[in-house]
Amino acid sequence: MSSRPARGRPRKGPDPERHKEILDAAADVILRRGYDATSMQEIADAVELLKGSLYYYVKSKEDFLYQIVQPVYVAVLDGVRPIELLEVSPLEKLAVFAHTHIHFVIENMRAFRIRIREFSQLGPERKAELAHSGHEYYEVLRRILEAGVEAGDIDPQLDVRIATYAIVGQLNSLTQWYDVSGRSGPAELANQMTAQIVASVASDRAVRSGGLEMLRRRVRQD
Amino acid sequence: MSSRPARGRPRKGPDPERHKEILDAAADVILRRGYDATSMQEIADAVELLKGSLYYYVKSKEDFLYQIVQPVYVAVLDGVRPIELLEVSPLEKLAVFAHTHIHFVIENMRAFRIRIREFSQLGPERKAELAHSGHEYYEVLRRILEAGVEAGDIDPQLDVRIATYAIVGQLNSLTQWYDVSGRSGPAELANQMTAQIVASVASDRAVRSGGLEMLRRRVRQD
Repeated sequence: MSSRPARGRPRKGPDPERHKEILDAAADVILRRGYDATSMQEIADAVELLKGSLYYYVKSKEDFLYQIVQPVYVAVLDGVRPIELLEVSPLEKLAVFAHTHIHFVIENMRAFRIRIREFSQLGPERKAELAHSGHEYYEVLRRILEAGVEAGDIDPQLDVRIATYAIVGQLNSLTQWYDVSGRSGPAELANQMTAQIVASVASDRAVRSGGLEMLRRRVRQD
Repeated sequence: MSSRPARGRPRKGPDPERHKEILDAAADVILRRGYDATSMQEIADAVELLKGSLYYYVKSKEDFLYQIVQPVYVAVLDGVRPIELLEVSPLEKLAVFAHTHIHFVIENMRAFRIRIREFSQLGPERKAELAHSGHEYYEVLRRILEAGVEAGDIDPQLDVRIATYAIVGQLNSLTQWYDVSGRSGPAELANQMTAQIVASVASDRAVRSGGLEMLRRRVRQD
């Protein structure tokens, strides 16, 4: 590294902007071609670099995959953690959780799609690291649902573990059908999905005052 | 084909049992390695055949992929079509649809996983054929939900199009989390998911008589 040619300004490491451009290009190629079929040469071609220059930014193709998906894990977990601290009912926390996740998926669609399709391509240590982070994320939702059962907001007959997986599964399924879901903008899509998710687990007590349709309206973010 | 060596019994085409064994092995390899990374040689090794003998059953690796996923499309559509003709309420039809789909996914997990991961690897004609079949499947569910809105069973504020995608997305998400979902057997898992799905779209009128928790209990299949 110390023998690289002198440049116009002192180099302290990879140029962050250039790094981001290269990651962008790598994500495009990986999404279009699939990780296995993607070569370092294709990524280099996409950013008009010599293949060897990529190794200034990454050590391997797997590094690209990690650098694309790891920030998603960090950001989505950072996004939902504060929800537990809100001074609102568990059902309202569930609604905020759903809105947060949906907007995050829509805004980071490419990275989410790559994550879902190519996670298994990561090496064992990175898989374990991200799976740990994913587990933390599920735990946030599971605790919200459990608090809802305790508070009487959520149907005590629901299996909280299954409900947690089913809700995250539904939220992540957006990566499969968002493009064909039609005319609704992101906000309306989030309202509709959140309304369904909250109603799916609500208890009789939670709908006693205004009914189920009113509960669905209450969890809209307008 | 006419020059192949004589065998102990007249051959009318590929031996169906052997064909099934080979498809099984191909599905195992494709699921474990990913379609791109799978070679015809690996499939041949898995069934202890010479690679050339595979071409008695398929013309290409893509044929294996098609032969693995196409029956899933046919069977799942055949499974849900009769539901529209049942003489029950739309919400009860939705419950039968959910139970049917969940059991089908669990029983055909490997093919479902391959379908979701590798669909994009099929050629354009086959993609179009299966997408058509998938569309028919969505349409069955969409019509059930629309009938529910008309009958007053389903919340008229729900966007039926989004609800259709969100429900199928949740059902298919089983392929991601079934293995870690814990102690519940398939029947209890189906009961729990169906209860959530039906509650997620029900109208106030649908829960007026017995409440939301009772509605969830009514859609169990025990």
